[in-house]
Amino acid sequence: MFLMEVKLHEFEKIYGDANKAAEARRQFLERVTGVKLENIGKTTIDLNTVVGKNIENVIGAVQIPVGVAGPLLIKGDYANGYFYIPLATTEGALVASVNRGAKIITESGGTRVKVLKDGMTRAPLFKLQSVIEAIKFVEWVYQHFDELKKVAESTTKHGKLKEVQPFIVGNYVWLRFVFSTGDAMGMNMVTIATDAIAKYISEKFPEAKLVALSGNMCVDKKANAVNFILGRGKTVIAEALIKRDVLEKFGVSPEDVHNVNVEKNLIGSALAHSYGFNAHFANIIAAIFIATGQDVAQVVESSMGITTTEPREEGLYISVFLPSLEVGTVGGGTGLPTQREALELLGVAGPGNPPGTNALKFAEIVASAVLAGELNLLLALTRNELASAHQRLGRAKGT
Amino acid sequence: MFLMEVKLHEFEKIYGDANKAAEARRQFLERVTGVKLENIGKTTIDLNTVVGKNIENVIGAVQIPVGVAGPLLIKGDYANGYFYIPLATTEGALVASVNRGAKIITESGGTRVKVLKDGMTRAPLFKLQSVIEAIKFVEWVYQHFDELKKVAESTTKHGKLKEVQPFIVGNYVWLRFVFSTGDAMGMNMVTIATDAIAKYISEKFPEAKLVALSGNMCVDKKANAVNFILGRGKTVIAEALIKRDVLEKFGVSPEDVHNVNVEKNLIGSALAHSYGFNAHFANIIAAIFIATGQDVAQVVESSMGITTTEPREEGLYISVFLPSLEVGTVGGGTGLPTQREALELLGVAGPGNPPGTNALKFAEIVASAVLAGELNLLLALTRNELASAHQRLGRAKGT
Amino acid sequence: MFLMEVKLHEFEKIYGDANKAAEARRQFLERVTGVKLENIGKTTIDLNTVVGKNIENVIGAVQIPVGVAGPLLIKGDYANGYFYIPLATTEGALVASVNRGAKIITESGGTRVKVLKDGMTRAPLFKLQSVIEAIKFVEWVYQHFDELKKVAESTTKHGKLKEVQPFIVGNYVWLRFVFSTGDAMGMNMVTIATDAIAKYISEKFPEAKLVALSGNMCVDKKANAVNFILGRGKTVIAEALIKRDVLEKFGVSPEDVHNVNVEKNLIGSALAHSYGFNAHFANIIAAIFIATGQDVAQVVESSMGITTTEPREEGLYISVFLPSLEVGTVGGGTGLPTQREALELLGVAGPGNPPGTNALKFAEIVASAVLAGELNLLLALTRNELASAHQRLGRAKGT
Amino acid sequence: MFLMEVKLHEFEKIYGDANKAAEARRQFLERVTGVKLENIGKTTIDLNTVVGKNIENVIGAVQIPVGVAGPLLIKGDYANGYFYIPLATTEGALVASVNRGAKIITESGGTRVKVLKDGMTRAPLFKLQSVIEAIKFVEWVYQHFDELKKVAESTTKHGKLKEVQPFIVGNYVWLRFVFSTGDAMGMNMVTIATDAIAKYISEKFPEAKLVALSGNMCVDKKANAVNFILGRGKTVIAEALIKRDVLEKFGVSPEDVHNVNVEKNLIGSALAHSYGFNAHFANIIAAIFIATGQDVAQVVESSMGITTTEPREEGLYISVFLPSLEVGTVGGGTGLPTQREALELLGVAGPGNPPGTNALKFAEIVASAVLAGELNLLLALTRNELASAHQRLGRAKGT
Repeated sequence: MFLMEVKLHEFEKIYGDANKAAEARRQFLERVTGVKLENIGKTTIDLNTVVGKNIENVIGAVQIPVGVAGPLLIKGDYANGYFYIPLATTEGALVASVNRGAKIITESGGTRVKVLKDGMTRAPLFKLQSVIEAIKFVEWVYQHFDELKKVAESTTKHGKLKEVQPFIVGNYVWLRFVFSTGDAMGMNMVTIATDAIAKYISEKFPEAKLVALSGNMCVDKKANAVNFILGRGKTVIAEALIKRDVLEKFGVSPEDVHNVNVEKNLIGSALAHSYGFNAHFANIIAAIFIATGQDVAQVVESSMGITTTEPREEGLYISVFLPSLEVGTVGGGTGLPTQREALELLGVAGPGNPPGTNALKFAEIVASAVLAGELNLLLALTRNELASAHQRLGRAKGT
Repeated sequence: MFLMEVKLHEFEKIYGDANKAAEARRQFLERVTGVKLENIGKTTIDLNTVVGKNIENVIGAVQIPVGVAGPLLIKGDYANGYFYIPLATTEGALVASVNRGAKIITESGGTRVKVLKDGMTRAPLFKLQSVIEAIKFVEWVYQHFDELKKVAESTTKHGKLKEVQPFIVGNYVWLRFVFSTGDAMGMNMVTIATDAIAKYISEKFPEAKLVALSGNMCVDKKANAVNFILGRGKTVIAEALIKRDVLEKFGVSPEDVHNVNVEKNLIGSALAHSYGFNAHFANIIAAIFIATGQDVAQVVESSMGITTTEPREEGLYISVFLPSLEVGTVGGGTGLPTQREALELLGVAGPGNPPGTNALKFAEIVASAVLAGELNLLLALTRNELASAHQRLGRAKGT
Repeated sequence: MFLMEVKLHEFEKIYGDANKAAEARRQFLERVTGVKLENIGKTTIDLNTVVGKNIENVIGAVQIPVGVAGPLLIKGDYANGYFYIPLATTEGALVASVNRGAKIITESGGTRVKVLKDGMTRAPLFKLQSVIEAIKFVEWVYQHFDELKKVAESTTKHGKLKEVQPFIVGNYVWLRFVFSTGDAMGMNMVTIATDAIAKYISEKFPEAKLVALSGNMCVDKKANAVNFILGRGKTVIAEALIKRDVLEKFGVSPEDVHNVNVEKNLIGSALAHSYGFNAHFANIIAAIFIATGQDVAQVVESSMGITTTEPREEGLYISVFLPSLEVGTVGGGTGLPTQREALELLGVAGPGNPPGTNALKFAEIVASAVLAGELNLLLALTRNELASAHQRLGRAKGT
Repeated sequence: MFLMEVKLHEFEKIYGDANKAAEARRQFLERVTGVKLENIGKTTIDLNTVVGKNIENVIGAVQIPVGVAGPLLIKGDYANGYFYIPLATTEGALVASVNRGAKIITESGGTRVKVLKDGMTRAPLFKLQSVIEAIKFVEWVYQHFDELKKVAESTTKHGKLKEVQPFIVGNYVWLRFVFSTGDAMGMNMVTIATDAIAKYISEKFPEAKLVALSGNMCVDKKANAVNFILGRGKTVIAEALIKRDVLEKFGVSPEDVHNVNVEKNLIGSALAHSYGFNAHFANIIAAIFIATGQDVAQVVESSMGITTTEPREEGLYISVFLPSLEVGTVGGGTGLPTQREALELLGVAGPGNPPGTNALKFAEIVASAVLAGELNLLLALTRNELASAHQRLGRAKGT
């Protein structure tokens, strides 16, 4: 088959320039498929800056509209003030939804937000001869933690090994290593550091046979209970107190919204046996992740979480709990031209000073934006229930 | 606060043109934040085509590199032949990973792929006075199914109400309506159709009080057991038989890869109580979804699933099961310039003939690409285990 | 080792009488272990009636105290009137807890209770060559359903095959057969019937290779989402409306109890990713199951479920949802002397007239008793919160 | 209603003797229901020893047949030697199933078994004003851990507070207190100790308002991820290596059994989203729990777990992982006449020397018995698959 003989991944070598290689690939594809790829080719990215780092077999770029929601008043430990949130999406009403939520929250005094935990994980899986050996291995790991730490940290400038969480099942051992990773989301950093640990173990404790550098207890890019309970990336809570009169302008009471939250987000999700006891965390997280160069596949576990509400005399208390929000301001796609601007818009582009503070600030902003989106959709759903009229925004977007 | 007085969402009205409105918004944001947004402004999208449909408060677009993996030989009911898969990502090694998987599969005769189920759902939540009334309501719904179908279908050209799946808990009733939606992913279509049903119910069975048009049993954008077991969007299985000698070129046997799959993807995910009994479905799905204008937040449930393997005399049987793959070739972001080209590259842009066949073909392609990515990562992990050398590709990307 | 040579299971043959065989076994064990087994030997059961049916290697019986809670007023379709619930337990306060709950409910007008679904399942697992064959097999099963039904029903007097729910993953097929089983819980009945189906399939569709007669999608004796969502055994809801003044005698309001239910049973269980969105269903179910000769291992899935509450003007609406309550009034341990009396106390011993009605009535009683226990523990916990004094009952028992 | 006026719970006071009170209750029930309760009345338990401790409103006892399986050779840290396992059940074939598994394991050299963790938990739920206060509260708890420990331990002789695991969601805080509880299962002990802590907190940190002494993160008597991942009670692993020729006597190979385990217990349970990646842990655990006076409702979480297998040259490696096995040898029903004999048969009745060792030994025995039952059912299912003949035992019992 002639197609097989064209080695698309060698075009950079042949053409000596990534932009030319991409053009040649497009021409090849256009010839083979009869499809014009002119818009994909019209990117402002200098492809030489991404090849070998962000992408292979590059042919150009996709363009996704970006809107802003805000200003959103945030009162965090790192994020403080008014923010305009960049959201990349093609789903009508999403930006408007976060925008209205932001307006209501800001009028009510803003969000308070806290990062409870911070650690990126990788959990290699080892196999031993028996549970007896598995236990010995785990004891050895505890005893040699300082050495493992040194080995791991020799591979990285910003990564620090904080902890190991071992799990034994039969003759299997997962070592869930938890690292702080500065301003990077850190997945690659900890993978490389863990690889060094695994190699060190294979020398010093050869009875522990590496099955896989990732044993699915990390857990990356799957909804799961380990991250839900122990956290991964940032564990964040954002909250707000929405004044009663602000809600009443929309014809609803704190009690109304609370009931919808209990009935939809708690009971509905209980019946679905879901990891999302919320209305639509994923919508907001996906839109910010795309706009800011995050690892979009991590929306899966980053969007797990719980929305709680409490009607109070003053108004509606509402919070969002995100146990596994995985974000960074360096690495991945954060340095690409448009993505970097989106991060700059939030004042979190590149490394923080001190290191790590930009990622923490960014996590606070993301959680606050999620809160805004969540509040608005609950409001929209509540109004629908109350047979009110013009809920065009919420309806099309409702989840 | 002066910021509040600027009404960003009225700029289209003021400026009479979306591109100018976006420019004015960028200028406003640049003034307020001191940040230059020139790259976000440099989009080839005519923003007039997306405002009011895909985005609000638009300021431009984000650009994400696109690479291609392939050719991948697919033998489906709708997709047949060699395909180049467009993947938008900023995570190095992902395209190469799918590419190598595609090469191996193609050499072994390609993927076989089947769509088992097809239906988009929306599940409004109603509250009754008691379980007695709840049961009566469900009986009424069954008896009036034809009327509800007519009401629903009056709102849409392509949506057809196929089924209702009722769930009762106490005095609550969820009606999970299942629609066929042609070539559209269909979330908006079925939301509007379900809204019509809800209004009809409020007239004809007023004792059933609508709590929320989405009661979290749909389930949209959350990992959950309902979609996992009953399906949503497309339920798809792709499989391949990788020849023994093809694997042996990589220094591994079918048995080796099978063991890693069992130990990592099955036992590891069991311990994590995950919805992802796989290595990295989400990576491939996110990259295709971004490239082709899908609803990226739906990566959450679309990436649930199970990878199975079986060593056979001839080689390695491998399959991927995706119970809730939500894709479309019309609507959402599928019509944007770059996204449309990505769909054209696969031969699935716009409506199929007959309607629905493009979305089905697309689902087959996505599942096949997932299979390629999955095979390659398992291979990469297995080789690491076997202390082989140059696994640069898999390591950084391993999940 | 001399121990190995004693064949305990042959004692019936040797001694020609089960009571004597049991005595001989006790003597043997007493000699080997130096332990006196006189109380275990003092059973009123004629062991000849249980050997070969309920137990092997029998040495006597264990005795567990039984208390009664009630009267509990139940208004079901099958159970109507006042009931005294037999509870076998060694956990102090449990009977008192259900008793107080029963009193409160009865004063408020009793429980209403509905059985929503009824079907015992067995899901054999088959392996095919590929997904293509798997789909063909499922189609064949649908086409030959009437034959399979005939084959299955030839093995049983009361079992009727109602439905088959097929699941495909890769080249695997689970056929979840749903039977009505009259007054029996029916696990053995449907296992034998399914075995006949499996044998028939092995003749008529030999490409489908039986992996295991139970493929863990039944699902028996594990907490799981399939039974939670699709049901197994009886799916039952019991509810009551507790008058406001009745609650106020305990110093609590409907709103207080509702808040505890939301915060403990919904949010707490969400965070725990539990199948029990309730306070202690398992306590009541275990105690009734032991007293009445049910399969106690099935407490696992029978105790899954959700408690909902709603404060109303008149008082507190409360309901319990039990998706997978597996009970019977014939078979298993239901015919043993003490167990049969416990069933008689409820008016449900032996077969119903018409068949199946005793098991349905029994399911209504169990769910009503669960409601009583649940109400009382919520009340006890609420009172603790309110710093009230003498919650001796709830505290020790609190879950 | 005259029934309401009879105060069954006052009969002890009226009659001055529990046996007489029980008789009077039976007479009352017989009169009201027309049912004879003579067998329930024929218990060897002196009811005065259980009233006010194990049961209320007692009317007698239920009798359940007990069989023994064994000898089972166990090589644990506490249990060492040959054991006969008492199993109380009414399900035919269960004892025989464990018996055959025990025989095979014993012939192959016995089980090895390890207790990995040991701790009983209670998690009260507190509500604060905001997440800010919630974090302060958790910090306060950490700072005052020694005081809380003192308060807790003042209520108990054997309970020692080992650790607190805090969880924050919004303005809620769960404090999961982990205790060592000697030879007791310890649920009541830790409930009382935690109540003391809660009272202390209400004085010293009154902003933390107790919602419920149990906040469903303990987690008691529900299948859940917290216990699955962090453990509760004893976390135990038992394993064995079954010789190839021993299996071959049954016409199966290690590879055959392994495949059934992977396909049924791993893939089947993955699809069911189960907490039981096993064949029938619950059967064995329920039967031992009933025989030995455990809290039978705890079978729910005690039976969660994973079975792993590995075919090796020498034979089949098999292990069972029980993350949350909750057992004790003092307290609860362990002191009742028949139950105490069952514990004595295992050499674990009453307190151990040193304290705690009896419960640990018992946990090792239970896990070993589970392994025996699991092995046998896998074997039985495998043989069915292989179209072999007389699998009477396994079939009827298959899960």
